[in-house]
Amino acid sequence: MTPTITAFERSPDGGKGLARDTRVRWALEEVGQPYAVRLVSFQAMKEPAHLALHPFGQIPTYEEGDLALFETGSIVLHIAERHAGLLPDDANARARAISWMFAAVNTIEPPILELVTARILESDKPWTWERMPLVVDRVRDRLRQLAARLGDADWLDGKFSAGDLMMVSVLLRLRMSGILDEFPNLAAYVARGEARPAYKRAFAAQLAVNTSELPTA
Amino acid sequence: MTPTITAFERSPDGGKGLARDTRVRWALEEVGQPYAVRLVSFQAMKEPAHLALHPFGQIPTYEEGDLALFETGSIVLHIAERHAGLLPDDANARARAISWMFAAVNTIEPPILELVTARILESDKPWTWERMPLVVDRVRDRLRQLAARLGDADWLDGKFSAGDLMMVSVLLRLRMSGILDEFPNLAAYVARGEARPAYKRAFAAQLAVNTSELPTA
Repeated sequence: MTPTITAFERSPDGGKGLARDTRVRWALEEVGQPYAVRLVSFQAMKEPAHLALHPFGQIPTYEEGDLALFETGSIVLHIAERHAGLLPDDANARARAISWMFAAVNTIEPPILELVTARILESDKPWTWERMPLVVDRVRDRLRQLAARLGDADWLDGKFSAGDLMMVSVLLRLRMSGILDEFPNLAAYVARGEARPAYKRAFAAQLAVNTSELPTA
Repeated sequence: MTPTITAFERSPDGGKGLARDTRVRWALEEVGQPYAVRLVSFQAMKEPAHLALHPFGQIPTYEEGDLALFETGSIVLHIAERHAGLLPDDANARARAISWMFAAVNTIEPPILELVTARILESDKPWTWERMPLVVDRVRDRLRQLAARLGDADWLDGKFSAGDLMMVSVLLRLRMSGILDEFPNLAAYVARGEARPAYKRAFAAQLAVNTSELPTA
């Protein structure tokens, strides 16, 4: 059964691939699972039909028969558990890959979200530029630890996994800030993720949505 | 095989149960799995032996035979997948419970972490008290959506699950702020979590550590 995901009718990033549907598209492309996309407007995301699918009024969602899921991490894990290619067969290695998925969203992403919030939601506040070095340093502290662990390996733990998919996706949010380039092995790690054919297909698919003509009412 | 977890030798919260080992203790208590605890000092957490277990120099970790895991969410998921009591048997309900685990750590916890950061790490900054209403409102926005979804149900999706365990644990971080009390159904939800015998045992265990005499060198 072909699953249906939701994505922004028009992403706030204009197609840079930072909206979270890209993570789900990437996972589906890695495992070779075709999917349908339903685009939702900002207005529709806050309406009851979408809130029934996603309690926080966001994208992506994932529908497959009777199953409806929200939260990117759990959607990627669901895909990874049901198809080969994103989790190792060995039970211990599998559990460690899932640790990296949680590390991406609960250890690395929160300080990055704080940076994004400062730059976007608080950009007009008098404190923001004085405060920025503190926010950036919290991101840097985490990246330093991540870079130390990665070392000169290609991926975080053996072969590419859903843990890498999530971590690369989270790190991509830093590209514009320049912070990633302070850690050459992390920049190369992200570039390896982006070079994967499945990532390229996912990126192209979201870009096509975001550069198409919007339907007129 | 009895797993070993790590916890703070002395938690920064003095035993309020907010350190993340409480989440893992709670999961182990829910499934009736005995466990051992190795306490680590702040200094030891930054040393190579601990960093080999936890790349970000934090607690908890989880060791069981050849398996070593970090990240609370993945440890709780690992426990939930291997023992009855924390995930439904039905595959779809199971996937939805995991969605709530990710929602707890990636949608609800980030704005709460930002609030904790503002109150602790930036408490001496000139902007902090002017900025605080913005930070609190971002927490409130998420809680409003969560409260709307929970409604008058006991738990987020059917019976108590690892999703509730993680969500209650994340919400507990708000207790001191008073924000939780603005949402009576969420306050009652958290109280239901705290009333579970397994939570009480987990809380008592961490409190005993944090109120014991420290060994003298």
